[in-house]
Amino acid sequence: MLRANAPSDVKPAIAGAVASTGESTRKTYSNGWREGTTIPAEYYLDAKHYNTDERYIAENLWLMADHVNRIPKAGDYFVFEFGRAESVIILRNTSGEIKAYHNVCRHRGSRLCRHREDPRPDDPRLSVLQLGSSGNTPVFRCPYHAWTYDLDGNLISAHNMQKDFDMAKNGLIPCHMRIAEGHIFLNFSREKKPPKFDTEEVEYLRKMGQKYGLADLKIAVRQYYPIKANWKLAIENFLECYHCGSSHRNLVTTHNWDDNLSPDQKARLLREMTTWACEEAKEKAGEAQGMGSGGSSWATEYSGELNPGFLTGSVDGKPVAPLLPRIKKWTHCTDLATTAHSTGYWQAYDDHVAVARFTPRAPEFTDCEIFWLVNPKAVEGKDYEPERVMSLWDITIREDIWIVENNHLGVTSRAYGPGRYAEHEGSPARFIKWYMDEVVKA
Amino acid sequence: MLRANAPSDVKPAIAGAVASTGESTRKTYSNGWREGTTIPAEYYLDAKHYNTDERYIAENLWLMADHVNRIPKAGDYFVFEFGRAESVIILRNTSGEIKAYHNVCRHRGSRLCRHREDPRPDDPRLSVLQLGSSGNTPVFRCPYHAWTYDLDGNLISAHNMQKDFDMAKNGLIPCHMRIAEGHIFLNFSREKKPPKFDTEEVEYLRKMGQKYGLADLKIAVRQYYPIKANWKLAIENFLECYHCGSSHRNLVTTHNWDDNLSPDQKARLLREMTTWACEEAKEKAGEAQGMGSGGSSWATEYSGELNPGFLTGSVDGKPVAPLLPRIKKWTHCTDLATTAHSTGYWQAYDDHVAVARFTPRAPEFTDCEIFWLVNPKAVEGKDYEPERVMSLWDITIREDIWIVENNHLGVTSRAYGPGRYAEHEGSPARFIKWYMDEVVKA
Amino acid sequence: MLRANAPSDVKPAIAGAVASTGESTRKTYSNGWREGTTIPAEYYLDAKHYNTDERYIAENLWLMADHVNRIPKAGDYFVFEFGRAESVIILRNTSGEIKAYHNVCRHRGSRLCRHREDPRPDDPRLSVLQLGSSGNTPVFRCPYHAWTYDLDGNLISAHNMQKDFDMAKNGLIPCHMRIAEGHIFLNFSREKKPPKFDTEEVEYLRKMGQKYGLADLKIAVRQYYPIKANWKLAIENFLECYHCGSSHRNLVTTHNWDDNLSPDQKARLLREMTTWACEEAKEKAGEAQGMGSGGSSWATEYSGELNPGFLTGSVDGKPVAPLLPRIKKWTHCTDLATTAHSTGYWQAYDDHVAVARFTPRAPEFTDCEIFWLVNPKAVEGKDYEPERVMSLWDITIREDIWIVENNHLGVTSRAYGPGRYAEHEGSPARFIKWYMDEVVKA
Repeated sequence: MLRANAPSDVKPAIAGAVASTGESTRKTYSNGWREGTTIPAEYYLDAKHYNTDERYIAENLWLMADHVNRIPKAGDYFVFEFGRAESVIILRNTSGEIKAYHNVCRHRGSRLCRHREDPRPDDPRLSVLQLGSSGNTPVFRCPYHAWTYDLDGNLISAHNMQKDFDMAKNGLIPCHMRIAEGHIFLNFSREKKPPKFDTEEVEYLRKMGQKYGLADLKIAVRQYYPIKANWKLAIENFLECYHCGSSHRNLVTTHNWDDNLSPDQKARLLREMTTWACEEAKEKAGEAQGMGSGGSSWATEYSGELNPGFLTGSVDGKPVAPLLPRIKKWTHCTDLATTAHSTGYWQAYDDHVAVARFTPRAPEFTDCEIFWLVNPKAVEGKDYEPERVMSLWDITIREDIWIVENNHLGVTSRAYGPGRYAEHEGSPARFIKWYMDEVVKA
Repeated sequence: MLRANAPSDVKPAIAGAVASTGESTRKTYSNGWREGTTIPAEYYLDAKHYNTDERYIAENLWLMADHVNRIPKAGDYFVFEFGRAESVIILRNTSGEIKAYHNVCRHRGSRLCRHREDPRPDDPRLSVLQLGSSGNTPVFRCPYHAWTYDLDGNLISAHNMQKDFDMAKNGLIPCHMRIAEGHIFLNFSREKKPPKFDTEEVEYLRKMGQKYGLADLKIAVRQYYPIKANWKLAIENFLECYHCGSSHRNLVTTHNWDDNLSPDQKARLLREMTTWACEEAKEKAGEAQGMGSGGSSWATEYSGELNPGFLTGSVDGKPVAPLLPRIKKWTHCTDLATTAHSTGYWQAYDDHVAVARFTPRAPEFTDCEIFWLVNPKAVEGKDYEPERVMSLWDITIREDIWIVENNHLGVTSRAYGPGRYAEHEGSPARFIKWYMDEVVKA
Repeated sequence: MLRANAPSDVKPAIAGAVASTGESTRKTYSNGWREGTTIPAEYYLDAKHYNTDERYIAENLWLMADHVNRIPKAGDYFVFEFGRAESVIILRNTSGEIKAYHNVCRHRGSRLCRHREDPRPDDPRLSVLQLGSSGNTPVFRCPYHAWTYDLDGNLISAHNMQKDFDMAKNGLIPCHMRIAEGHIFLNFSREKKPPKFDTEEVEYLRKMGQKYGLADLKIAVRQYYPIKANWKLAIENFLECYHCGSSHRNLVTTHNWDDNLSPDQKARLLREMTTWACEEAKEKAGEAQGMGSGGSSWATEYSGELNPGFLTGSVDGKPVAPLLPRIKKWTHCTDLATTAHSTGYWQAYDDHVAVARFTPRAPEFTDCEIFWLVNPKAVEGKDYEPERVMSLWDITIREDIWIVENNHLGVTSRAYGPGRYAEHEGSPARFIKWYMDEVVKA
């Protein structure tokens, strides 16, 4: 009955509902926010802030949409949705190139392809022809008046138009697009020149891409996860593992990310690691390792070891697919890469890669989709079972959605006041600082 | 999850997302809209524009509500709903007159009769007495405190009121009403004097009424069709047949409205028409005919032939009911009338008449209801089957709802920019010009 | 499809849609409202007024939340929700004291306990640990990062925090709380000093508490009743019995509250009463009695007789439980108490007490919960059946919800204009005057 997005207008914080701060919470901003603490609820809840966020993201970030191998053949396409209203067709044309066009007919604005949640009832009497949210087609024909576009967005049919109507000027509107290591990135800027694509994090993705051969892998399985929470809460969650020990039993059994261990437990685990750990980990011996170990190492890049007994990111530690083509032996290692503030997220293992994307859709609603990549020669049912490939991160994201939606509900209270990020929450703290500096410009 | 009415505040159009225009798109208005093109998305999406629209319609248009034969006996009534909040009881009083009163108790504002979507659970323990959204009653008794009104709206019982309480001044508030050819029209003006009723289009409805004996027909079947789209998109759709060839296979098999035919196909159809066409069509031989033929003939009035082999507006062309009383033989003809920008719509055949009404309810929500009229002497199950009577227009409206809801979704995109109406879309283009001139006053 | 809260911006009342007033409608306020009439629709519908209401209530009223015997043992707790966003944990600590803390973690704002309508799907793979909306627990551990609080709200565990982090300053935020006659009252003021608790109505509740031994009774059964209407409509409904005769067949069969009786019927009932009526009623013989008798007697306190043949507030008049410990014989009497404008409501009988609470949640949404108290020694299944204990008021509230939701729908119409309260509606008339004076400050 009640919506998750109670507005913030009735909730000046209760006196005292503010984190006790110390030296480690530094600068105070013009809007009263102190660096090192969580942000006032209005930034999570209010439509006006969401509008700012959505527009900022549209103009400035490159959102990872999917893997090129989702559309291997000419005419393959799928629809990607962003924000409250954007819908883009990503397709492969007859030359084998990937293209992205807004899913909007130039005539009267109809969507050419349906969106994900619109599976028209199968009434066989109806004669409307509309493409679904993914498939293969030689042309995009509008379901309304049959204006038809080819795979390069050209308007190739529009009957009964006036003599001064210029078909060439009525092609589909392109969307900015880049491809890196087999992954498609979109930017929604209205400007002709989109923002810079090649950042440091993309460089790191390219490194991972080479190591794991990302561009040539195949999608074994995919799953859509709608999240009833503000996008920043979803991102903050994926930027830290301070919560992993308490919320992700399976994840910390697989990964060395349990921050809740006692000193004794940690020491024992480290001893076991010595004989087990992967090469990268050995090289870095003595350095801070991974998410469990400090504020600076999370996000954009991370290499680390799996827990003793775990060969890959599976619930039981056993392989879920054949080794990836470029991986020659079981290394006990995992690599992580992210782009654009974890809106794109890659977790690579020797036998598969879990890829997640987060997309803001409304003040209190965020899309999450995960797909799992495996060796392109692996055969479903013979070499791998989709359920096993996806199990660890499917469980993990479901746990995250629970706690993130619960977090969204909590910040609506008058008793919520900015709290203190822990030392291990350096990444969300930096994300929030970036948000205040660059998006809110506080 | 996502609502159809994403606001327009985040969507200044992408550069280039505007129709190429030519001489046929003429005047440019103060709000930037060019005649001959579709309107900016905000007019379809924003609550403030919907408020303006709803108020304009309330004050200025006569909305067709239903046929008088829905309430043949004294005490028969039904509830008609308009906009986000209006509810009116239309009834037949003991003198046989049709009356319309707001469905609001003068005491504390309760609804006297329930609305359509409120079928109270049948808990036999509850003793509240409330009339449903249609039925027969000697009086209207408020379910709350039992204030009771007679069929002329007079308050006839209100116990325990103060001595200075004047029953005579607390009758039900009447709603402006007119009847034409057996159809009830409402206007929601707050002024005592409503707008003029007898316009040219009502004149034409009267002509059709005489030809088909509309006032005396009986309702064979009715169906409610909620539409998740702005009312203007629903109206624009019903004002043109440019889309019929691509979206209405059954409709263009019955009617000569397929604009997508090749010249060869058109020529063959015309030859067949010569021997088949109805008298009116023959008289007008050589003139432009119907929806398939140009920008000026659609809406308010239209007469035309059915396709060869079709005796009536049915899926198979076979009769669905006995000839109407005033129609003496099968003519192969059909007539169309509309009122108030197609918010009232009549499609008459020799054996039945399909009558549709469109009513705005919210920015992204429009009511549609269709009822089908037949010979008053026809007996259900013997002379006609409701499913057959309704089939053609039931299929057609379901197809229209699909494409109209899809259109509403599309215009939310930043890539939607005003597009160009085709030559055959003269009627929606004129409707939109009227909207800009009279409602928006741009 | 349509929401109950159509905004008032499109609905200046139709000319004439205003109550005829007389001397009994006195003062006219600056906002045009006349004392003795119902309020303009905007006060029931608009978010801005609801915001004012919610904030006023938070700061000024003491809302009855529940009975202490809901949480008899140390560690017992439940969640109470107020307004669009507040959630409070009410618990019993190890010393046996009742405490109330905001259900918000001081770290990042998560809810510690789930809310009523969030029964997480029972996926056994998920490892998130979160307390439900009621239960027993030694500590409150946040499901996100495991910050842990004891039963006195102290933060007792938060790993990996900075050295300058002060645990003592990060305890749960307390909520103002008072207890009277076994009932827990909350106030949401942001000030350290909450408003005065001991008012005249609380004094009367204490009197009733002594007579019926309220503090020691046990909860036999409870039921949650969400209401899709503005809180003021729900309160107005519970403040008068002018509607009882028409809407509550069972209630007026049990109670002498039928205002619709004819003079003959009233006289006969009075004769029967003479031999039946309870002691209090006999003492007050000749005085105005109860809800059926005038404008001044309803609310805050009331004592009265049950109808002949009815020993208690049951559908058949037969006992539903053993006599309460302090009641020594069947008295044929009932007592009523209310607090804070009937947001707390007690109806006491010889063998049970029905206790209702009303809580605003959104402009068009109000929580109602009723619990029924019985003799603490009574055994379910042997001495009482919950269905019989709850039947009369369960039926009554369901009837009230019907008419109140219907009232909310009705006031949205342009044809609603302030109407006249009847003589027997003195209590809602006074409530509305208080609302205009104190909340709106018109």
